[in-house]
This record gives sequence, structure tokens and C-alpha cells, in this order.
Amino acid sequence: MHGASLPGNNGLNTISFFTPVQKGLQEVEALLRSQSNGAHPDLGAALEHLLSSGGKRIRPALGLLTAQMLGAPQDKLITLAAAVELLHTATLVHDDLIDGALMRRGNPTLNARWSPPATVLTGDFIFARAAKLAADTDHLPLMKLFAETLAVIVNGELTQLLTARELTSRENYYKRIYAKTASLIEMTTRTAAMISPVDETVVESMRLYGYNLGMAFQIVDDVLDFTGEQAEVGKPVGSDLLQGLVTLPAIYYAEAHPDDPDVICLTSGSYSEHERMERLVLAVRKSSGVKKSLDEAQEYIQKALQPLAGMPDGVERQALEDLARYTVTRKI
Amino acid sequence: MHGASLPGNNGLNTISFFTPVQKGLQEVEALLRSQSNGAHPDLGAALEHLLSSGGKRIRPALGLLTAQMLGAPQDKLITLAAAVELLHTATLVHDDLIDGALMRRGNPTLNARWSPPATVLTGDFIFARAAKLAADTDHLPLMKLFAETLAVIVNGELTQLLTARELTSRENYYKRIYAKTASLIEMTTRTAAMISPVDETVVESMRLYGYNLGMAFQIVDDVLDFTGEQAEVGKPVGSDLLQGLVTLPAIYYAEAHPDDPDVICLTSGSYSEHERMERLVLAVRKSSGVKKSLDEAQEYIQKALQPLAGMPDGVERQALEDLARYTVTRKI
Repeated sequence: MHGASLPGNNGLNTISFFTPVQKGLQEVEALLRSQSNGAHPDLGAALEHLLSSGGKRIRPALGLLTAQMLGAPQDKLITLAAAVELLHTATLVHDDLIDGALMRRGNPTLNARWSPPATVLTGDFIFARAAKLAADTDHLPLMKLFAETLAVIVNGELTQLLTARELTSRENYYKRIYAKTASLIEMTTRTAAMISPVDETVVESMRLYGYNLGMAFQIVDDVLDFTGEQAEVGKPVGSDLLQGLVTLPAIYYAEAHPDDPDVICLTSGSYSEHERMERLVLAVRKSSGVKKSLDEAQEYIQKALQPLAGMPDGVERQALEDLARYTVTRKI
Repeated sequence: MHGASLPGNNGLNTISFFTPVQKGLQEVEALLRSQSNGAHPDLGAALEHLLSSGGKRIRPALGLLTAQMLGAPQDKLITLAAAVELLHTATLVHDDLIDGALMRRGNPTLNARWSPPATVLTGDFIFARAAKLAADTDHLPLMKLFAETLAVIVNGELTQLLTARELTSRENYYKRIYAKTASLIEMTTRTAAMISPVDETVVESMRLYGYNLGMAFQIVDDVLDFTGEQAEVGKPVGSDLLQGLVTLPAIYYAEAHPDDPDVICLTSGSYSEHERMERLVLAVRKSSGVKKSLDEAQEYIQKALQPLAGMPDGVERQALEDLARYTVTRKI
């Protein structure tokens, strides 16, 4: 309801944690859409397509809520939120190209409509604009964090790409989801605190909030891949495992059932036996691995809520708490 | 001779303009090679391959000469030079992927050895490291220029990709070579002055030097594509035009011979008629378009040398002057 101006926010528009930053999100949206000004018109069309493709703007909302709660200057807060969303968008553009994905969030990906060369360059252009916006916050440590986070994300993708599709350790799993999801969310709340008039302990608290929220968010995503209904999640149940990507519920299942022949096959990297993997998906879905994973996500959320307790009381803190709790109760 | 430690610098090692910054270039080299520390080992191998593939380090040398001439702090000067070279390297990685090029400077390109996904991500990783190094100079306006220059380069590539392969105006040609080459060289000498203890007029002088040098450099490159011997240039004579890319010598020829049937075909976008284009290459090669283009490059070099006259006298300024003059006399 409050998110009416946000395109395609998939039901999240009625959820109250966007409310305190509704006006800010509109400004972010305008800033995002102005990023292709002066560039080739087709780049403008590509950017418009990407920005209209159902992104929920969770990262900008997190940045705005944090910075607004902590009294950051209005202009920097908008610039930072837009920079974060563009960095995220650029990585998605290259991701979809790499995966050959034709749909994301129910919309055609850029590479479904553009040639691979144009898609590579559009991603590069969006990286450049993200870097410019980050620099526009006039904050050097922030700029360095941006660059380092991009390196972490890309190194994580490359590691996933180059690693055999087989059973992995929990330790590797945590590293992967940190690179994939938590690093950017951690950076968002951390940099939002950095541009605010607060001391280092507050910055560290908000970093911890973002880190733990991000870890929980990805674990829940990985659980929903097993437990969600295909119609809601928009992809086949167990699609990660069917593609050879072993996530936390499956790791827990494998730890509990080392003698399951399907687990043994997974360990030896025979993920390509589709029938086995389909059977394994069903086994994981019914196993305690799901609950163990959700419990773990819940623990991360508790660790996210803890540092929030010391933050200034108000609608923004409330929204950040709600967002954290929603992360583990969501169904899509 | 002095460049013995620089890999594959193609004969430039005996040219004296590298001499005053030889030690700095070695430090840059070490900093470049350390950029994959902590990342996936294959990324390290990819970076090593790219850095060993015959880059002449002209941009780092330009940055070092400028900054050293103007008394910049030693650490910033090395960091900046490495950042510039990495930004250049990242754009080349994505360029080669886009063009499907299998060789560059006589060495296999990264995409000739890696999958397209790994190549996209390696380019992204190098962008991230370039951004981090740029931020490490602790200079916000420099950081913004970096981001803006990347946007200019990428927008130029995309414009070239999306534009019909046909006769273009001189105006469009200048825009294209600015985006492709001059923008980064302009940024290099400009930012090198920015990190030095000098006033705005000196920064503007060094920007002008870089801009004009960059424009001349690309025009000469485009002339050599027509006049060079295949064995020296490493690609077929007229390869640009054969691929539908119309450069300055051809534009001058077309202006002088609007009724040449091959020119008319080019205007109407029929570049695919290979026989016509081969005939046109020979016509351009023998035409006054070559001399006109070289004269124009010479004018740019004069405009590059002019602002240098006001710079501190010494081996660095001499090297920058030599480098400018070499740009228009070189044969490869």
C-alpha cells in the first residue's frame, strides 16, 4: 500500500517496514533512473528495464532506515542507497548472463533480450555508475568498502563457478553465502552508519546487524528452495540441488545420513544423475535438515536483533526489527 | 634495455622515456601482481596471464612521469599508476570477450583459454581491484574521475556496438576515439597531477597533455591499420574497415571522393561486400587521407607539447615530450 510507487514489489508493499522511508525510496528511484542520462539511449532502455523488473529495494530500504535512524544527512543517504542498489543490479546482470538465466522475478532478464556483448557492457556501465554514486558520498573508507565488497562478491561467484558440484562443508557454505548475499547487506548497513554522526561502536553494531541479517536471509532462501511451492517460489522445488548446488538443508541431511546411497553419489560428485537428485530433494524436504537450517537462521536473526537494542528508539529501529523477524517467517 | 624486467614490452624497452620511472614501474608491477592475493587461485593465474601478455605499461609510465615531475608522494604515485593499468586491463578483458578476439599483442586472450563466464567475472574482479587502488590514493575527486571515465569508456563501446557499421562523421569519430583511448590517457595525466602539490592550472595543463596525446595516439593507430605491414601490426591491412569500422583516413577519403561507388556503398551500410571493402582499403592506403590524418595527429601532439612547456624542467618532462613525439613517428 505504501509502496505503490515501487514497481513489482511482490506483496512486500503492504509490509510496514518500508513506511518510514517511503519518501526516501522515491528519491532513490528517481536517482537510479537518472543514471543513464547522457548515455546511449539503448542503455537508458536497458536500465529502465532492469529497474522495473521487480526488485524489492530491500537494500536501499535497509540503508535508508539505518541512516535515517542515525541522523545521516539526507542527500548522502539517498546517494548511498542508490549506489548499493546499482552495485547489486550490476552483479545480477552479469550473474544472469553467466547462468544463461532468461527470467528473474518473473520478468525476462536483460540477456534474454540483449546480445551477450551488450549485456556485459550494460553491467560494466552500471558498475561505473555505482562507483560514481559511492564516490559522491564524499567518504573514502566507504568507497574502499564498496570496492572490497565487489571483489568479495565476484571472487565468491568465480569460486562457485570453478568448484566441482559436489557435497561441500558447512564452512564452505557459510563462506559462499557470505560472498553471495551477506557481504552486500553488511556493507549496506555498515556504510549507512558510517555516513551518520555516530561513533565506531555504532558502526560495528550496524555492521553486525547487516551481516547476521544477510546470513539468515540466504539460509531461508535456501530452505524455501526445498519447502516452497513451485507456484510461489517461481522455480522447481529443489532447483539448487538439481543443479548441483548443495545448500544447508542438504548438508545437514548428508551429515545425518552418510550411508544414504544418494548422499554417497553426491559426495563423489555424481550430481548429474537426475533421478537420484530428485529423490534426494524429497528426502531433504522431509528431513530435520529443514528445521535445523531454520533454527540456524533464527539464531542469526537473534544476533542481528541484539546490537539493534542499543540504537535510537523510533519507527526506523522498529522497522529494522520487523524486517529481521520477517526474514525468517516469510514464505516467498 | 632499461625495461628488461618488464615483460613483453615489444621493443619499447630501449626507448628512453621509460628510464626516469624504471624503479617506479617495477613497484607498480609488483603491486599489480599482488592484486589476486587471497582470491581463488585460478584468478591469480588469470591475472598473471593478463599481466604477462605484452602490455607496454604506457599508462603507468605516463602517470609516474607526470607525478614524479610534479613531486607527488611516492606511495600514491605507485598506487595510482597500478589503478590506471588495472582499469585498462579490465576493459580489455571484456573487450576481447565481446569481440571474440583470441589473440592480443601476439598472446592468447583470456577468453581464448577461459569460459566466457569466468572471463566476465575476471574482468569484474579487476574492476573491483582498480577501484580499490584508486580509493587507496585517498583522493575523492580522483575516485569520481575514475568512475566517470569508466562510464565514458563503456558507453563508447556500447555506442560502437549498437551503431550501424557505416560511414560516420568526423565528429562521431572524435567522440569514439575519445571514449576508446583519449579519456583514459587524459585521466591518467590529470589524476597524476591531482595527487601532486600543484595548483589547478597545472592539473589542467596535464589534462590537456593527456587528452591531446591520447587523441593523436588513436589516430596514428588508425593510420597504421592502413599503412602498416601485416607482419608488424599483427593483423591484416585495413582490418578496421574490413570489419566495418570507419576511421579517419577512410573518412577523409570519402569526403574527397563522394562519387566513388565503393564509398557510396559504405554510406549505405553495405560494408559486408568484402571485395568492395578490400578495394577501398587499397584506395585509402594510397590516398591523401593518410597524410591528412597524420597531419591532424601532429597537430594534437603540438597541442600536447604546448602545456608541457610550463612544467618543471627535468628528465621527466623530457621523457613526456619524447613520448609525445614518438607517438606520431612510431611504425607499430
